Amino acid sequence: MAAPPNVTRTLAAFIAEARREDLPGPVAHEAKRSILNFMSTALAGCREDAVDVTLASLSEFSGPRQATVIGRTERLDALGAAFVNAAGGNVHDFDDTHLRTVIHPTSPVAPALFALSELRRVAGRDLLHAFALGVELECRIGNAISPDHYGRGWHITSTCGCFGAAAGAGTLLGLDAERMAWAIAAAANQTGGLVECLGTPTKSLSVGNAARLGLWSALLAARGLNGPAAPIEGRQGYFSAIAATPDWSALTDGLGESWELLQNTYKPYPAGIVIHPVVDAVLALREVEPIAPEAVSRIVIRGNPLLAARTDRPHVKTGREAQVSVQHSAAVALLFGGARLEHYTDACVNDPAVLAVRAKVEVEQDPEIAVERAKVRLVMTNGREIDMDIRHASGSRSGPLSDHKIEEKLRSLAAGWNPAHDIQPLIDAVWSLDRTDDASALLALTVPR
Amino acid sequence: MAAPPNVTRTLAAFIAEARREDLPGPVAHEAKRSILNFMSTALAGCREDAVDVTLASLSEFSGPRQATVIGRTERLDALGAAFVNAAGGNVHDFDDTHLRTVIHPTSPVAPALFALSELRRVAGRDLLHAFALGVELECRIGNAISPDHYGRGWHITSTCGCFGAAAGAGTLLGLDAERMAWAIAAAANQTGGLVECLGTPTKSLSVGNAARLGLWSALLAARGLNGPAAPIEGRQGYFSAIAATPDWSALTDGLGESWELLQNTYKPYPAGIVIHPVVDAVLALREVEPIAPEAVSRIVIRGNPLLAARTDRPHVKTGREAQVSVQHSAAVALLFGGARLEHYTDACVNDPAVLAVRAKVEVEQDPEIAVERAKVRLVMTNGREIDMDIRHASGSRSGPLSDHKIEEKLRSLAAGWNPAHDIQPLIDAVWSLDRTDDASALLALTVPR
Repeated sequence: MAAPPNVTRTLAAFIAEARREDLPGPVAHEAKRSILNFMSTALAGCREDAVDVTLASLSEFSGPRQATVIGRTERLDALGAAFVNAAGGNVHDFDDTHLRTVIHPTSPVAPALFALSELRRVAGRDLLHAFALGVELECRIGNAISPDHYGRGWHITSTCGCFGAAAGAGTLLGLDAERMAWAIAAAANQTGGLVECLGTPTKSLSVGNAARLGLWSALLAARGLNGPAAPIEGRQGYFSAIAATPDWSALTDGLGESWELLQNTYKPYPAGIVIHPVVDAVLALREVEPIAPEAVSRIVIRGNPLLAARTDRPHVKTGREAQVSVQHSAAVALLFGGARLEHYTDACVNDPAVLAVRAKVEVEQDPEIAVERAKVRLVMTNGREIDMDIRHASGSRSGPLSDHKIEEKLRSLAAGWNPAHDIQPLIDAVWSLDRTDDASALLALTVPR
Repeated sequence: MAAPPNVTRTLAAFIAEARREDLPGPVAHEAKRSILNFMSTALAGCREDAVDVTLASLSEFSGPRQATVIGRTERLDALGAAFVNAAGGNVHDFDDTHLRTVIHPTSPVAPALFALSELRRVAGRDLLHAFALGVELECRIGNAISPDHYGRGWHITSTCGCFGAAAGAGTLLGLDAERMAWAIAAAANQTGGLVECLGTPTKSLSVGNAARLGLWSALLAARGLNGPAAPIEGRQGYFSAIAATPDWSALTDGLGESWELLQNTYKPYPAGIVIHPVVDAVLALREVEPIAPEAVSRIVIRGNPLLAARTDRPHVKTGREAQVSVQHSAAVALLFGGARLEHYTDACVNDPAVLAVRAKVEVEQDPEIAVERAKVRLVMTNGREIDMDIRHASGSRSGPLSDHKIEEKLRSLAAGWNPAHDIQPLIDAVWSLDRTDDASALLALTVPR
């Protein structure tokens, strides 16, 4: 299908002309949930290698220390802070997921807006509105080019995230439709990132760039740096370069009527999303009765073929690999009654007790079972069998994390980050974000005292 | 064809283990010619909009003012200077051309090395060696993915330039083969840029990023930020994402034996390269005898079909468009005896005298005529015909610009930039670059006094 005319112009005009007052209440609430969830993973990620190294290097070249690095005492110029906060929020892939595209929507977008809120005063309601619009552009572009784009090797969170950051920052800067299109063009010309880099700290570069260069795209458009009229749909534009058969209608159909943010999901476990119903099932089995690991002879997992295709990894050596190992995840859930970040460290992965349980896991494929469902059978050494069937994984669209569960995730990850830090003020500040005239106050609440 | 194993490792090892002493003399000399040519276009470009706007914005976020912005008194941190100098050197597309790929090799690579030479002391010979290696990687990647890559919409100077900057900077940083591969991975994960943006200031963002992010990739690898083993050839690596049918052999065949830098060419005119033999022909006609424009009734240009396909633009309104208009270029050559930057301004394009001559130009296609050749016939009002046949355009591989002509280009563009500036010391410094232990001295000679 040929590109419809003026796609970029249509998107830019929608974003530029959207009114804060018209943002539906549920969308604003989902924006808060997304930001709360982001804060949890950003605190958990703020001391990872990828953050340490990029922060040290950016610090060497940093301008005025205008902006907060979440979870740390160092500060950076606004562009650098946008980079590092995006990198940290996404480093464990424990941030939110837009299931249709596997985009992690918040990490590239929110840090760009936070950094901007430290450059100039931004009201909380404006930030929520800008965030929703940024995620809208990000995920609509993702919808239009999925699944081919990721399949070829594009890290879709990075590539689409840059557009989202530009649109969100452009909204806060009050860009008109023409300049919004320039910001989109600047983002199109600066975006990139490869799936091949997942599992290494290099991954974080494209995620950080998405926030930094998206923010910069909007700042440059505000300064009048003009771009081509059709950066997305032009003959040698972004979609020509990266998408074989884009679904153009996904870009513009129902703009302002449906909101992609309402499709956002939050992970209870820092593991591949297809593993989630398996962990749910094992935890549910433990709730039925206490289970001694040595009394279990086999753990038989039955799931959608995608489960095996993506996560059948019985022999893992590193925490990174373990995040996409269904065997490891089932084992730690059984042993420790949870699947938390501490269960995906190299030390835990090589713990002999974990190895022993991992060896008992078997994975079976059943195309009749949906991706968000899993059946787990424990075969005990005495021959007894105990079954559990989880139809909707926690954190899925059908079994979304409650507000309370997202709060709990933040409490838990914040405690791992800094047990002495009182995190309640941050939780309160996110829930009341629409009532503050200074959104940057959020960030101060993430700094260790 | 499937990817051969260890392509990235082979490239990284070649670059990391190359010895300065083994760089062939002609390659080192070509490096100087490339840098001299780059200085001319960087001075000519340093006050363009794209440079003004990005410099103003980067200045707001700049760290220590370590590094020179070529042609200006402002300074920036090293990453920012790499960006702005690359953007300025390429802004008119008047920089060098690797004809097989249409990469402009020097603009993304040299500024990364210059910036690094202001961060730590770099000997001139080391800079020339690193530059040659950077261009080698840049153009070999380009060879492997041309012409499909550009055809799809990728701005190949930007995309391949980032690899070149990383390899060159990595060489100066003394990265071993493993870290060089990490630098290549970081570049692969950060590169981008679209042909659609040509003709607008947005274009300069990806060119600047190529230098900045390439340099940063090497700095991060030096700090130990590790990446995947196969960023280029991996299943979801760079070539999977961007190249349908890469020519893998172009990456590694004859490494260290042939040098892509020896394929570099330099433009005498700031116009599309296919227009060059036409300008040559018109200037040659004027040398045969004085020609009064009003005595010419038709200007009949016969060239390869590519000439018409790319540059048949009789009605142009802006200097930008005129750079790819054969009609405009022929007209100004006839009227003014040259095709210089001042002939590609909006004012000149809309000058009635130029319009009158432009209307007399006719373009004919002849597949028997090579791209670097053109035939021009002037039909005079009295019926007389005068013919000129240029077989090898000046600046082509068969008719390369002499060292003296490249010097002249620098003198001419430097005079347009700042007539009061004595440019001879810069020329001398480039030719003697292999004999200085502080390559950054070059940059001081580009600053207005």
